[in-house]
Amino acid sequence: MSGRSHRPRILTNWALARLNAPRQTPSAQDWIPAKVPGAVQIDWARAHGLPDYNYGQNVRAYDGLEDSHWLYRTSIPQVTRQPGERLFLVCDSVDFECEIRIGGAPVLYHRGMQIPFEYEVSAHAPGTMVEILLFPAPKRHAGPADRTQASHVTKPAMSYGWDWHPRLIPLGLCGETGFEVRPAAAIREVNFRYALAEDFSSADLSVEVVTDPPDRRYSWHLVDASGKTVLEGIGPRARLENPRLWWTHDHGEQYLYTLVVELPGDEPFRRRVGFRRSRLVMYPGAWDDPMGFPKSRNNPPVTFELNGRRIFAKGSNWVAPDIFPGLINADTYRPLLQLARGANFNILRNWGGAGAPTEDFFGQCDELGLLVWQEFPLACNLYPDDPDYLALLDAESKALIRRVRQHPCLALWVGGNELFNSWSRMTDQSLPLRLLNRNCYDLDPSTPFLPTSPVDGMGHGDYRFLSDGQDIFATFQKARNTAYSEFGCPSASPVDYLKAFIPADELWPPRAGTSWETHHGLAAWDPPDPTTWLCLGALETLFGPMRSLEDAVEKSTWLQSEGYKSVFEEARRQQPRCAMALNWCFNEPWPTAANNSLVNWPARPKPALASVAQACRPVLASARIPRFQWRAGEQFTAELWLLNDRAVSQPAGILAAELILGARVIPLREWSYTEVPAQGALAGPKVTVVLPDTDADEFTLRLTAERQPGWSSTYRLSLRR
Amino acid sequence: MSGRSHRPRILTNWALARLNAPRQTPSAQDWIPAKVPGAVQIDWARAHGLPDYNYGQNVRAYDGLEDSHWLYRTSIPQVTRQPGERLFLVCDSVDFECEIRIGGAPVLYHRGMQIPFEYEVSAHAPGTMVEILLFPAPKRHAGPADRTQASHVTKPAMSYGWDWHPRLIPLGLCGETGFEVRPAAAIREVNFRYALAEDFSSADLSVEVVTDPPDRRYSWHLVDASGKTVLEGIGPRARLENPRLWWTHDHGEQYLYTLVVELPGDEPFRRRVGFRRSRLVMYPGAWDDPMGFPKSRNNPPVTFELNGRRIFAKGSNWVAPDIFPGLINADTYRPLLQLARGANFNILRNWGGAGAPTEDFFGQCDELGLLVWQEFPLACNLYPDDPDYLALLDAESKALIRRVRQHPCLALWVGGNELFNSWSRMTDQSLPLRLLNRNCYDLDPSTPFLPTSPVDGMGHGDYRFLSDGQDIFATFQKARNTAYSEFGCPSASPVDYLKAFIPADELWPPRAGTSWETHHGLAAWDPPDPTTWLCLGALETLFGPMRSLEDAVEKSTWLQSEGYKSVFEEARRQQPRCAMALNWCFNEPWPTAANNSLVNWPARPKPALASVAQACRPVLASARIPRFQWRAGEQFTAELWLLNDRAVSQPAGILAAELILGARVIPLREWSYTEVPAQGALAGPKVTVVLPDTDADEFTLRLTAERQPGWSSTYRLSLRR
Repeated sequence: MSGRSHRPRILTNWALARLNAPRQTPSAQDWIPAKVPGAVQIDWARAHGLPDYNYGQNVRAYDGLEDSHWLYRTSIPQVTRQPGERLFLVCDSVDFECEIRIGGAPVLYHRGMQIPFEYEVSAHAPGTMVEILLFPAPKRHAGPADRTQASHVTKPAMSYGWDWHPRLIPLGLCGETGFEVRPAAAIREVNFRYALAEDFSSADLSVEVVTDPPDRRYSWHLVDASGKTVLEGIGPRARLENPRLWWTHDHGEQYLYTLVVELPGDEPFRRRVGFRRSRLVMYPGAWDDPMGFPKSRNNPPVTFELNGRRIFAKGSNWVAPDIFPGLINADTYRPLLQLARGANFNILRNWGGAGAPTEDFFGQCDELGLLVWQEFPLACNLYPDDPDYLALLDAESKALIRRVRQHPCLALWVGGNELFNSWSRMTDQSLPLRLLNRNCYDLDPSTPFLPTSPVDGMGHGDYRFLSDGQDIFATFQKARNTAYSEFGCPSASPVDYLKAFIPADELWPPRAGTSWETHHGLAAWDPPDPTTWLCLGALETLFGPMRSLEDAVEKSTWLQSEGYKSVFEEARRQQPRCAMALNWCFNEPWPTAANNSLVNWPARPKPALASVAQACRPVLASARIPRFQWRAGEQFTAELWLLNDRAVSQPAGILAAELILGARVIPLREWSYTEVPAQGALAGPKVTVVLPDTDADEFTLRLTAERQPGWSSTYRLSLRR
Repeated sequence: MSGRSHRPRILTNWALARLNAPRQTPSAQDWIPAKVPGAVQIDWARAHGLPDYNYGQNVRAYDGLEDSHWLYRTSIPQVTRQPGERLFLVCDSVDFECEIRIGGAPVLYHRGMQIPFEYEVSAHAPGTMVEILLFPAPKRHAGPADRTQASHVTKPAMSYGWDWHPRLIPLGLCGETGFEVRPAAAIREVNFRYALAEDFSSADLSVEVVTDPPDRRYSWHLVDASGKTVLEGIGPRARLENPRLWWTHDHGEQYLYTLVVELPGDEPFRRRVGFRRSRLVMYPGAWDDPMGFPKSRNNPPVTFELNGRRIFAKGSNWVAPDIFPGLINADTYRPLLQLARGANFNILRNWGGAGAPTEDFFGQCDELGLLVWQEFPLACNLYPDDPDYLALLDAESKALIRRVRQHPCLALWVGGNELFNSWSRMTDQSLPLRLLNRNCYDLDPSTPFLPTSPVDGMGHGDYRFLSDGQDIFATFQKARNTAYSEFGCPSASPVDYLKAFIPADELWPPRAGTSWETHHGLAAWDPPDPTTWLCLGALETLFGPMRSLEDAVEKSTWLQSEGYKSVFEEARRQQPRCAMALNWCFNEPWPTAANNSLVNWPARPKPALASVAQACRPVLASARIPRFQWRAGEQFTAELWLLNDRAVSQPAGILAAELILGARVIPLREWSYTEVPAQGALAGPKVTVVLPDTDADEFTLRLTAERQPGWSSTYRLSLRR
């Protein structure tokens, strides 16, 4: 089914038992209440009083629960059915592998979170027992206990432990699971596709409806946003003239139509649809890049073109907003996606190590005008050319493509994360990636596909404010990548937030083996830096010994705010060669002590988010500042720029640059800039000034655009004596 | 059909008429005799006395013949058939688009050279007229009159004009075309596939037989090279234990089995089959390549692994051995392929601009132990995302894959030539390439696939002895590519060869607008160098003004011989990072005045072939010499190396280096080398010597390996005063 069924579901009560052996029959006292959707860990914790896994190091109390077999149980409800109506057990998503038994007899084997399953129970009497036996979480080998255990399945690898995700491997019925009454003639599946004319003057629609029994007559119509029917069809094909296009919020309207499919006797099927064309194109001038002999290939295109317009992709890497997929719903996504839009982002990358979001996520992105880069569930592992894995990936990827291709927000399919790097060791010849390219070509050829990120020319990393003796400002000013699809700059979480989950006696100083480490503040990154993500070393290099928790958090927040701003703006200054800046990462699945994220779990923005939002404004004054920290008496320099992501040029004007040191304001110069080109970056003069020898330990560069208050920018920099 | 039918064909006489309009009925005097397989141009030339296109500038007399409609005509032969037997018109290949008419009525439309066509004529009386109306050669636009006219079809682009191929666009029935009697129950198609166990201990065979009528009972058996039946099957699947593997000639035996399929009432179907595993793998140490942040991907793998053994791929670029595919047969291939094997090559790249060879080519490569890199017919063009083109490419590519995948010599599928470069402007998102990946994945997943050559890390070019102020020795010593899949070093053809097709009054000096230019000696390359491929500028830079044709040919041959040797050996010195050296090109479709080829048309080796054969010996002494030309009194240096492509190491020994100037032999030094690693390159000491001031204008560096006479090498270098 492309998306979940449109009929109401009858929900029943579930019980759960942990088994010692797959075929064990639980005794009465083994049964505990189960919440569906949910996870066995949550039910078990509730029943047995396990402490909150989000607090301190409690997460370790959940170790090993994923290695048991678990049995869910409910019974077929008493339902009044009309003649011909049928009853089905329906499950939207299971995590991860199960056997379904009706009245004690196995009837279905299922695995994979992307593929809903169903089983007809019409012939079974109400009260008949329905059991779902969950198998233990897949582990390719006993050790090491890390992501490589998930390298043969489509279960998200992050749960096996990541530098921002604890090792806690969910199991359970994580999608809505219940019973559904279906009429004698039912709509089984609706596949909506379209091909836009090259000039967007029309869209050739295909509305493929699978009915049960097959080939029943159906009708459909398309309703515009005002409620007016604009097209009616009885066959699968029709042409819509002058479709209104769907745009990202920064480039136009998020126009959505509603498709209604009707089959006599069944409830109408409705879904919102939109029209867009997404392409990856070469950047202007890319083919002119000089290359000597022997000549290799040009870099692959990674510039998004939406509806024929080249756009600069600004955004972030989305990860699962909770450890447990069964706890995620529309209300989980809403505040996060609103923060993303508020940050002037126009794209989110659904990173391959996390599970794919549900329909609510994509529906909200459709509404908010956020593009989605969707990866398949492969990340940082060597997924094998193995028939069993290929069969699973084939089924899961087809289900995911069929579901998501119907959303206008979908911009790009990607095979997975960092698969062509030494820590994964997959290659262009890996059959899983050739399979994914095949499935995307077969099912959604008009959406671009990349085997992985990064491809040639794109960059991932760095993830530290200081590395190899230079700061993040300098690193990215030297880089010349076509896209920055991951770059990180960590900070500690706010003090009050830390106090909510780190025991008071562990708070300061941060020590190895404490909650700081459990929550990724220390020894998080591979290759391990003993103080990532708190990065005490960098803090002390720049500012000297940290005096308190408050001091460390304040300084680290400052670095993250200015660090991220510097990269987003530098990437935009490098357009059109560079066409994308997506920081790692946007959100997080649980409270982190320190992380590269912009938003703390569940949806609490960190201070850097506001800086990023400033750097991602459609039009702004920008400064290329060689580095973050300066010394009194030294000559400070900065290049002035104007950045414009709009499709229209911006009028000429005057930009003033000033330095602010405490109470002093030092005018630097005014720049009479010319018209700022559409979708371009305009370089201006360099300002220079000898930094006065004051007591200040910071100063601010302020850029003010005359008559354009919304373009003004400030940069808060460090000053040492 | 995978490969042509196994039944004898009844051949009839054909006549041909050139039409003024598609529906014109030719009059009696319009008909000329036609030779099938052949081409309309050849028949027309024979009937109308056109001069030999290979001579002088006669080729221009053939201009425009491809723009007519042409009508082939024969009649259904009188054949005695048994009850139930059927009669078919069968054509192995048509160039390029046609309509088949029986008794005046159109019955079939066909296009594409890879797809045979057939039509049942059992119901038609003997003597019924059979016509095949050929459409004009496809041209996407009226101008420019170059390869871009073929950018929407699978017809080979070379015919539209290349720097070594005249503009002469064949049309005609280029494959055997005739009539076939089929028994009541017939074998229609045999698809042989296999999967080798990871340790090669067994092969799971799949013998899929399509019968007409469907699902007739058949049996098959596999016969080994001694004639012994080693496996019998009645179903499509069986396991062969301990299959003997097929190897390239330099790594093992070319073991072939014979598959025999039997269906009662039909003739047995036989084909030779072999077992090999071909993979593209990362070179040893590739994953360790240091890369700073931001990190991009590692280069894609281009190291061949045959049957689990990494091999260095040495070979050349194969182009069509004739302008007219209808003139090519087993005897055309045989001497050329024997020359390739004699040159110690183990691979040929079937370049995408030429048509794919016939079964004879692949069968001979199976026997000779030559790997084949097979490209689809795309080259240096922007092939469109257009439904009509995609449908044609889909059908043609499937036919090609089904046919060629059954040959053990097949090593690699490649989408086409130089498609990701500025002169083609296709990208990873181009649907034709995604389609080809899809078809290769679906039909032959165990053979590697690359979208194009070069991919990242691989190099194409240069194609000149001197460029950018340095010679080919220096260019490649500075290069660090993972594979050199094209590099050229041109020479003039031998004097007697030139005299055979360049009129005497044009022979010297070479002038623009003469046969020199028509035959690519001048102004051939794009971007045009006025004297490519003769490269008079380079000859005069190195040697001063050329005094005669003989002088120019001798010098140019010297440059090609030493130039090619230097690149093949340098590529091998750079192993394992570099894993391939394929020069551009091996052969040619007609006589060239100058070209990068090693063998003149039709199969006459140029002197450089012997040098290349020396450079490609499995084991040899090698010298890295900084440049080709030296000055008397200057200090000459060279690094000594030993190169070993064998799978076993070579024993330690002593290598002596000497300089030979005229009658003088100057001993340089002896190197007591250690064991030479298997599949490796061993670097030795540098020799240095001040070049004496003599009258000689050349000198030779000679390397002699004690007790290994076969390893000795010489380098003939230029000396100026």
